[in-house]
Amino acid sequence: MPDNTIISNLPVFLGCDAEYEESSICVFGAPFDSTTSFRPGTRFAPQTMRADSWGLETYSPYQDRDLTDTKIFDCGDLELPLGDTEQVLSIIEDFAAEIIKENKTPVMIGGEHLVTLGGVRACYDKYGDDLRIIHFDAHTDLRDEMFGVELSHATVIRRCSELLGDKKIWQFGIRSGEKYEFEWAKKHNTINKFDLNGLDDLICELKEANLPVYFTVDLDVLDPSVFPGTGTPEPGGISYKKLQDAVIKVCGGLNIIAADVVELCPHYDQSGASTAIACKILRELLLALSGR
Amino acid sequence: MPDNTIISNLPVFLGCDAEYEESSICVFGAPFDSTTSFRPGTRFAPQTMRADSWGLETYSPYQDRDLTDTKIFDCGDLELPLGDTEQVLSIIEDFAAEIIKENKTPVMIGGEHLVTLGGVRACYDKYGDDLRIIHFDAHTDLRDEMFGVELSHATVIRRCSELLGDKKIWQFGIRSGEKYEFEWAKKHNTINKFDLNGLDDLICELKEANLPVYFTVDLDVLDPSVFPGTGTPEPGGISYKKLQDAVIKVCGGLNIIAADVVELCPHYDQSGASTAIACKILRELLLALSGR
Amino acid sequence: MPDNTIISNLPVFLGCDAEYEESSICVFGAPFDSTTSFRPGTRFAPQTMRADSWGLETYSPYQDRDLTDTKIFDCGDLELPLGDTEQVLSIIEDFAAEIIKENKTPVMIGGEHLVTLGGVRACYDKYGDDLRIIHFDAHTDLRDEMFGVELSHATVIRRCSELLGDKKIWQFGIRSGEKYEFEWAKKHNTINKFDLNGLDDLICELKEANLPVYFTVDLDVLDPSVFPGTGTPEPGGISYKKLQDAVIKVCGGLNIIAADVVELCPHYDQSGASTAIACKILRELLLALSGR
Amino acid sequence: MPDNTIISNLPVFLGCDAEYEESSICVFGAPFDSTTSFRPGTRFAPQTMRADSWGLETYSPYQDRDLTDTKIFDCGDLELPLGDTEQVLSIIEDFAAEIIKENKTPVMIGGEHLVTLGGVRACYDKYGDDLRIIHFDAHTDLRDEMFGVELSHATVIRRCSELLGDKKIWQFGIRSGEKYEFEWAKKHNTINKFDLNGLDDLICELKEANLPVYFTVDLDVLDPSVFPGTGTPEPGGISYKKLQDAVIKVCGGLNIIAADVVELCPHYDQSGASTAIACKILRELLLALSGR
Amino acid sequence: MPDNTIISNLPVFLGCDAEYEESSICVFGAPFDSTTSFRPGTRFAPQTMRADSWGLETYSPYQDRDLTDTKIFDCGDLELPLGDTEQVLSIIEDFAAEIIKENKTPVMIGGEHLVTLGGVRACYDKYGDDLRIIHFDAHTDLRDEMFGVELSHATVIRRCSELLGDKKIWQFGIRSGEKYEFEWAKKHNTINKFDLNGLDDLICELKEANLPVYFTVDLDVLDPSVFPGTGTPEPGGISYKKLQDAVIKVCGGLNIIAADVVELCPHYDQSGASTAIACKILRELLLALSGR
Amino acid sequence: MPDNTIISNLPVFLGCDAEYEESSICVFGAPFDSTTSFRPGTRFAPQTMRADSWGLETYSPYQDRDLTDTKIFDCGDLELPLGDTEQVLSIIEDFAAEIIKENKTPVMIGGEHLVTLGGVRACYDKYGDDLRIIHFDAHTDLRDEMFGVELSHATVIRRCSELLGDKKIWQFGIRSGEKYEFEWAKKHNTINKFDLNGLDDLICELKEANLPVYFTVDLDVLDPSVFPGTGTPEPGGISYKKLQDAVIKVCGGLNIIAADVVELCPHYDQSGASTAIACKILRELLLALSGR
Repeated sequence: MPDNTIISNLPVFLGCDAEYEESSICVFGAPFDSTTSFRPGTRFAPQTMRADSWGLETYSPYQDRDLTDTKIFDCGDLELPLGDTEQVLSIIEDFAAEIIKENKTPVMIGGEHLVTLGGVRACYDKYGDDLRIIHFDAHTDLRDEMFGVELSHATVIRRCSELLGDKKIWQFGIRSGEKYEFEWAKKHNTINKFDLNGLDDLICELKEANLPVYFTVDLDVLDPSVFPGTGTPEPGGISYKKLQDAVIKVCGGLNIIAADVVELCPHYDQSGASTAIACKILRELLLALSGR
Repeated sequence: MPDNTIISNLPVFLGCDAEYEESSICVFGAPFDSTTSFRPGTRFAPQTMRADSWGLETYSPYQDRDLTDTKIFDCGDLELPLGDTEQVLSIIEDFAAEIIKENKTPVMIGGEHLVTLGGVRACYDKYGDDLRIIHFDAHTDLRDEMFGVELSHATVIRRCSELLGDKKIWQFGIRSGEKYEFEWAKKHNTINKFDLNGLDDLICELKEANLPVYFTVDLDVLDPSVFPGTGTPEPGGISYKKLQDAVIKVCGGLNIIAADVVELCPHYDQSGASTAIACKILRELLLALSGR
Repeated sequence: MPDNTIISNLPVFLGCDAEYEESSICVFGAPFDSTTSFRPGTRFAPQTMRADSWGLETYSPYQDRDLTDTKIFDCGDLELPLGDTEQVLSIIEDFAAEIIKENKTPVMIGGEHLVTLGGVRACYDKYGDDLRIIHFDAHTDLRDEMFGVELSHATVIRRCSELLGDKKIWQFGIRSGEKYEFEWAKKHNTINKFDLNGLDDLICELKEANLPVYFTVDLDVLDPSVFPGTGTPEPGGISYKKLQDAVIKVCGGLNIIAADVVELCPHYDQSGASTAIACKILRELLLALSGR
Repeated sequence: MPDNTIISNLPVFLGCDAEYEESSICVFGAPFDSTTSFRPGTRFAPQTMRADSWGLETYSPYQDRDLTDTKIFDCGDLELPLGDTEQVLSIIEDFAAEIIKENKTPVMIGGEHLVTLGGVRACYDKYGDDLRIIHFDAHTDLRDEMFGVELSHATVIRRCSELLGDKKIWQFGIRSGEKYEFEWAKKHNTINKFDLNGLDDLICELKEANLPVYFTVDLDVLDPSVFPGTGTPEPGGISYKKLQDAVIKVCGGLNIIAADVVELCPHYDQSGASTAIACKILRELLLALSGR
Repeated sequence: MPDNTIISNLPVFLGCDAEYEESSICVFGAPFDSTTSFRPGTRFAPQTMRADSWGLETYSPYQDRDLTDTKIFDCGDLELPLGDTEQVLSIIEDFAAEIIKENKTPVMIGGEHLVTLGGVRACYDKYGDDLRIIHFDAHTDLRDEMFGVELSHATVIRRCSELLGDKKIWQFGIRSGEKYEFEWAKKHNTINKFDLNGLDDLICELKEANLPVYFTVDLDVLDPSVFPGTGTPEPGGISYKKLQDAVIKVCGGLNIIAADVVELCPHYDQSGASTAIACKILRELLLALSGR
Repeated sequence: MPDNTIISNLPVFLGCDAEYEESSICVFGAPFDSTTSFRPGTRFAPQTMRADSWGLETYSPYQDRDLTDTKIFDCGDLELPLGDTEQVLSIIEDFAAEIIKENKTPVMIGGEHLVTLGGVRACYDKYGDDLRIIHFDAHTDLRDEMFGVELSHATVIRRCSELLGDKKIWQFGIRSGEKYEFEWAKKHNTINKFDLNGLDDLICELKEANLPVYFTVDLDVLDPSVFPGTGTPEPGGISYKKLQDAVIKVCGGLNIIAADVVELCPHYDQSGASTAIACKILRELLLALSGR
């Protein structure tokens, strides 16, 4: 091939160009949105984020860290059999399990929120009853079923909760759900409505216990003014700065053994600002993880 | 017809599927935008809001109330003779008068702000000098005329003020108008520039007097970052949470005998976030009204 | 309810406001797109078509017929369990079967092309080996499986062909597929590449035999210049007039016992022109069917 | 002002920068769309066309003529009182009359089609029973009234026909209307359905009679594949080349005493291709007129 | 020309219709974006801002001042040779120098940020070592070169700093850059990361010294929720109100001898809200300048 | 890295996944648009085409050939110094020269049309006076300079013509240009206005002479109804089928030693149909080349 200047960085996420073997963090995409009930399109998030991530810098003035000083591998996207939900979750689970087995941290880019269940299953296989989940979201995601379907973006935290057992999940920013979901949350999880209050205390508590934590960020926890590019915009959310601060604290302070960032839907992001936010949150998350 | 599962809820606004006779609140659309001077399209708001409202939940965690526990009827949209403004206002007035006559509360979805005049006329016929108006807006809407036309979205509050008499209208959030409009406002109405300061005191005052109040919400009172989907975006507005809180307080605490939510323009709402806001404000407004 | 002028026509497709009992044709929507591999969104087609259909006239100067002279019932949309493909197909099949049982003609609005399989199954139950299919499409839709999934928009005609047996399906306008699909088509179906040549002869032949025909129109048979609003635009298609003429001839001349119009994806139809085309094709199809 | 290179051409239409006194053709905009029943926005057409016209060349290889060799004045846009339809038409009529009085040819850019009535009234005042109209459109525009309103985009040719008397109007390309409109057209006008057949004969006939002709081009006569940027797209229209040829023939061969180009709606023209077409048609029209 | 009501205001920015001779402030556009590395389109900003500015009022209730009471001239846009960057900067420099020579204040509408260098050069020619710069931005713009190019939107403040010398530039709101850029800033300029803290003190200091100040506002200093319409959205910015307050304080309190507002990219402003913000900031800036 | 199913095909163009050494054709992107005078954005074409190309099939039923049977290498995109036009052309020239040197055929994806000059220079270095160019375009591209700049998308064919000498270039489909450009074309090149007439004769002639031919396809040769996604839409172009047929004939029948496909501007391609066309033309071009 001609010896010349070629842009070779575009296929991977900003600064995630280490080799697999040397990396302690592995990014991968799960472009799945088949159970989305309102407006699909999150399957395009991983690809769009990779392309637009290069509009950001690798250096974070917030953390004074640089992705060029880290070792992160971008695996690309999983090839998922749209229309066969259980099989999709198995592929995600197996893939995450491979990464965890080598003591690397998988960071998944959704896709709809259901993909989290695959990642959580992989972690539960390894960590069992120790596993905890921190969940940022606008929605409870605690339905028992949705139009008769048990595996759905609207049921995903319910399924996780059933797997892990009671009081293992902390939900933050929640401002939408059926009444019974809020009641279920109070009984089986710990729910913080509307904002991130209580997060600092939780971090102290979990830090002390040093338990393995799965961290799932549904980006619609942000206010739609900040993040319009999502399938189900829910007014009344938190600000960008609050989310960024929280992500840095959670990933920098806790034993995060896997994480995901889900529900960017590029179709509804005409300006690209939502994609930029998703990318910057992921950059800060990766930098915080790699600084541990 | 085949006995089967059909989505029958889409034509009405979320949870507004009671019978007319049993309902104490009646929602209806006034899809009119013919006097809009800058960018038309608010006529599409009622139809778009009905469709997208089903992306929200019927339950409000803010008020701990559920639309499934209310009796609200959605009348559909008025058929309005575009191009004959006076006739349009008559149709709105007559329709609102019918609802008021049966001691139900009409809640109108605009359309441009001029439709408010039809609703106010119907209320003035019944309540006369007792009638008061609370007006949320970015714009004064107090011009004497607009390009020689007296019935316009830019004159609507002036016309209401002339009908009701001096000092019957409180304006909040106002940040745009000609200089003479601000002076007129100070003399004939009560104007609160830029935000909702003073609203709590007003609520106390009006509550004591127990006067009938017409509540008109021009959604462009919100900052364009929150609500870009409107014909005349005016930077410097209030946040979503402030508006939601205010709507709940006004509708939950006062003798609101009619209300409207106007100026959503779906053309400029590529992401659907503005429509989601309009729907959620209406949901909270309806829940607060029905909780009285 | 107030005795007044309300737009009551919007929830149904243009002119399809007869009672179920008196109707010989039943329109219904199948808003499903979960197996779409490239760009989802066809689930929004039925709802968007109903709303925009009122921009057309009920009268066709092409056929000199008027929908106001017909008896057509619009059933609304099926509520489909996204994420459970087999169940979705069962619901469609059962619903179509109910309509067919009463000797009415079901006309389905997709949704992705897979929904056709539900309709064809219902017809095969009634008509067995007599059943024929006329298929307009850009794509062969003859894959054996897609990413390991057998029920997919890319396999639907293969599944139909396996159900009906060899040489029961005529495919027109086909210009995209894997090589083996074109070979399969030649062996098991009758394939007309690129355009509608041969349709007139087929109509004569089938007319004489008076066999029951299922007519499925994938709108991407049209050139993307004419119909950009679809998930997988495939350049090199036919013109609008050719499709309209063919629809009138097929529906006016043959024993069509069920039909569908699929693959409009409103997300990619910024101008609304593709939706207008889908609506007009459906209007002409319904008028031709009702004129028999 | 600093002596420097400033782009001073943008406010006028491409090449229309002569002085008023020396010009034989006057372009002006009528940004009115208040009676538009389906989707408004044509008011933005004159401004958008002026801006985008500079993407074309002043030279036409079709006519081998150049706008730089012509004397055309662009008057700018009329300031129209939105919401007072009759007053809008008076302003247009008066303005066109001023131009005609000085034996210049007014060429109006709409706006919705109703603006034509203002121009036709001005011409009828001068030319009386001699006046003829050539009308290109997808729609009959022959309703007696629309939602009870007599002055509407859907009634404009009916109003013109009533003013001029029977058999003075030739309609081409018509493919949409109520049944009674087609019947009215046959009786009172001359209607050519679907295409421009018969135009050549008409040109011969009118040329010989040397009668003054008003030429009105509703751009939706074009197929929506060619011209999606319009409020009411009607599939089945003519091609760009047919329209361009016809415009050159009509304007080059007949005694055109006024003309208009209407119904571009930039909102639905994401790519700008429809605006480019409107501009090029106007360029060819102006060049053909100026070549007489 | 006919004596009639014509909208003659559209080609100039809202209220900037004074004669050149009588004006103390001159607005002009620099529609250049050729070095934009991520997403071009800022060249359209001046033209779009002029058109949309008329959706605002001339009166500011914040400053209680009215553009109708000022004397401001809008020069139009410079004609710039795209593709020849150095020549573009020369044209800007010469044009600004002409205005400055007559003791008028040039206010430039970008275009990309590189255009600032032209304006700063003109000011430096006149004011030499006294010249100071206040710089609002999300990005440091301090690269030494970008893809081997020294004149770039990403190097513009570096070039200005090299021209003026050390410690003459104050940067506010900065939240993105390479690590070395932040270090360079600390050494050669004064940098205020993330927000506008320190601005009040700076204003006091500069006011006392009465030094001539060039004020450059890169609108992406705003949070993308507020201002999505820009080429490189960078989450974590300031609010609209903070920017407006700061602009009024800087322009009202200091010896501003030139200013610019850059980096609006209308392509990414589907709703027009970002353009409205750019226009309102410019209105407040002009009113504050004219009130000195 | 985990042994699992990963989508690894996205970064390259559909089916172009051979090794460099074994390939006879090399695709590369030249994402440059800095001289674009009207609407920039073509720099995004290569990246968008690669992503969307996977919505097509590798098999062409037109040529009965499959990309899976070819050896084509996709080099990725050149990293180009925006703002330094001459340097950009050098990089393109050097890169193309490397490929040509190894007797491979470079196929470049633009970018704006100016990139062609880089490719042509590389070919002229090798083939000298034997080199011929076939040029499909809506525009003459024969200006002497554009706003004082000699290297511009509007001058590119003039520069090529000056390099090769008279009567070496055949231009097809041309329908826009200044008058003097058309005259220059007649004198120095061979110009075929409006369509592709004369192409068959030319192919015979060149085939016999067996001269090396550079083939440059400006996609705006297509009618904007077919291909709206371009910066300067020019109505009156050719159909998709005509272009596809011509591409197959030129590339299958002649000694094409380099080719390019330029001027797709994804910003103006909301539906993705223009990108699909660009991809399909490139697929057919590659298949025809590889079939020689």
